[in-house]
Amino acid sequence: MPEAYDYELEFKVRDYECDLQGVVNNSVYQNYLEHTRHEFLEDIGLNFAELFEKGIMAVVARIDLAYKTPLRSSDKFVVRTRVEVQGVKYIFYQDIYRLVDDKICLKGVVTTTSIINGRLGVSEEIKTAFEAVIAKRQN
Amino acid sequence: MPEAYDYELEFKVRDYECDLQGVVNNSVYQNYLEHTRHEFLEDIGLNFAELFEKGIMAVVARIDLAYKTPLRSSDKFVVRTRVEVQGVKYIFYQDIYRLVDDKICLKGVVTTTSIINGRLGVSEEIKTAFEAVIAKRQN
Amino acid sequence: MPEAYDYELEFKVRDYECDLQGVVNNSVYQNYLEHTRHEFLEDIGLNFAELFEKGIMAVVARIDLAYKTPLRSSDKFVVRTRVEVQGVKYIFYQDIYRLVDDKICLKGVVTTTSIINGRLGVSEEIKTAFEAVIAKRQN
Amino acid sequence: MPEAYDYELEFKVRDYECDLQGVVNNSVYQNYLEHTRHEFLEDIGLNFAELFEKGIMAVVARIDLAYKTPLRSSDKFVVRTRVEVQGVKYIFYQDIYRLVDDKICLKGVVTTTSIINGRLGVSEEIKTAFEAVIAKRQN
Repeated sequence: MPEAYDYELEFKVRDYECDLQGVVNNSVYQNYLEHTRHEFLEDIGLNFAELFEKGIMAVVARIDLAYKTPLRSSDKFVVRTRVEVQGVKYIFYQDIYRLVDDKICLKGVVTTTSIINGRLGVSEEIKTAFEAVIAKRQN
Repeated sequence: MPEAYDYELEFKVRDYECDLQGVVNNSVYQNYLEHTRHEFLEDIGLNFAELFEKGIMAVVARIDLAYKTPLRSSDKFVVRTRVEVQGVKYIFYQDIYRLVDDKICLKGVVTTTSIINGRLGVSEEIKTAFEAVIAKRQN
Repeated sequence: MPEAYDYELEFKVRDYECDLQGVVNNSVYQNYLEHTRHEFLEDIGLNFAELFEKGIMAVVARIDLAYKTPLRSSDKFVVRTRVEVQGVKYIFYQDIYRLVDDKICLKGVVTTTSIINGRLGVSEEIKTAFEAVIAKRQN
Repeated sequence: MPEAYDYELEFKVRDYECDLQGVVNNSVYQNYLEHTRHEFLEDIGLNFAELFEKGIMAVVARIDLAYKTPLRSSDKFVVRTRVEVQGVKYIFYQDIYRLVDDKICLKGVVTTTSIINGRLGVSEEIKTAFEAVIAKRQN
């Protein structure tokens, strides 16, 4: 994993994810990015479903995706992720690379925030975990 | 709607529901059947999400689907549904017909039951509503 | 439909589109936007699947979504769409409004282009159809 | 893998696969079964997308699923698969077990067949590959 990233997760395209053009449907890339963020959370001791049960909703405020190369049936790929903290926002830079040739397939920026018991707020639990990730990366 | 059914709902295939073979993916028919059941519930005064919030989980125990003719991009179709009550089970007979020629596309039997506060049980609310539907059909 | 838009399509949330937070999953909004674009195409005499069979692939190059208010089980909503032509790009401004209170749920900008027989190119068929839409709007 | 099966594939539930009841949506199990069948094909030298390009459509004729225990967020599980040949039909017995306690989650029987250049037929390629699997299991 290149230095610029904090976490990566490997996937393989499943045929039901492809549409009638024979490529992965555009919306499915959001599934890949979301699953990678949730696995990243788990990797640093947080769990999306448990946070929700405690009244902490991690929500997406913005998503900006640049589609570079379409993924196809059976392609293996990796989603590489870096997180930055900006006030009440956690910004994830998430890029997808095809494994066979390391070709960039998608560049994504996902801006998330937290709703705590119905109101926008900072979850100390999430903030502390991400700050540790960032500190580790910068050393 | 033929007499044998209690409820029908019209749909149009959305392109993202088609897979690389250019036909609606097999799993998507379950989405059509589920949405039709939930709209049917709403039509008789029940709401799936509200039932869940009250601790009543309507769950599928069995599903048996016979695929007859594949649906394709832009096809319009109707899901016709009949319900039967059998002890703690609600059995839905759900058939899909393509609108252009009334050709049968799928024949489904979906056996559902209720989990009330974590235990298999009869929801009086659901039972009463379905019995009214059946009584109406038989008159 | 407000003047700023060329096309709108009404939807109702289906329960299988909601995730464990009880709201429509973020990726599903892309399905709504895509289906609206394809219905818009059909409305002006173009068909996404037929274009594909003729070797014209309409593809998404960028997508930028701002999530404003989450849609929930049973919500009815409308996707309003405006198209602009910019060289080889067709840019769709697609906004989702909840019907009960006309509250904005999502603001989207979807930049698309065409791949003709494997190469980036202008499809005269698509271009002419969109220019007619824009001319009509501006009168 | 128990002797009764020919192939197994491990998965982890992704949060977007869960619905508002907090469990994996019923339709998603079909995705798991399909992906396992396609990986099984690949494992014995066949590829679903390539077969399609050669004019061989592997299609599902029937699917019968018994839901035993719901899968939830983060659950790891395995799809175990056995194939039988019956005339023009390939029948897949596909069972899902949760990894933490080997609890059965779903029992499935998926009856498939082949459409060759638009007509029901036997693909020698598929038949030979499956017969080799069955011969190996019976020794």
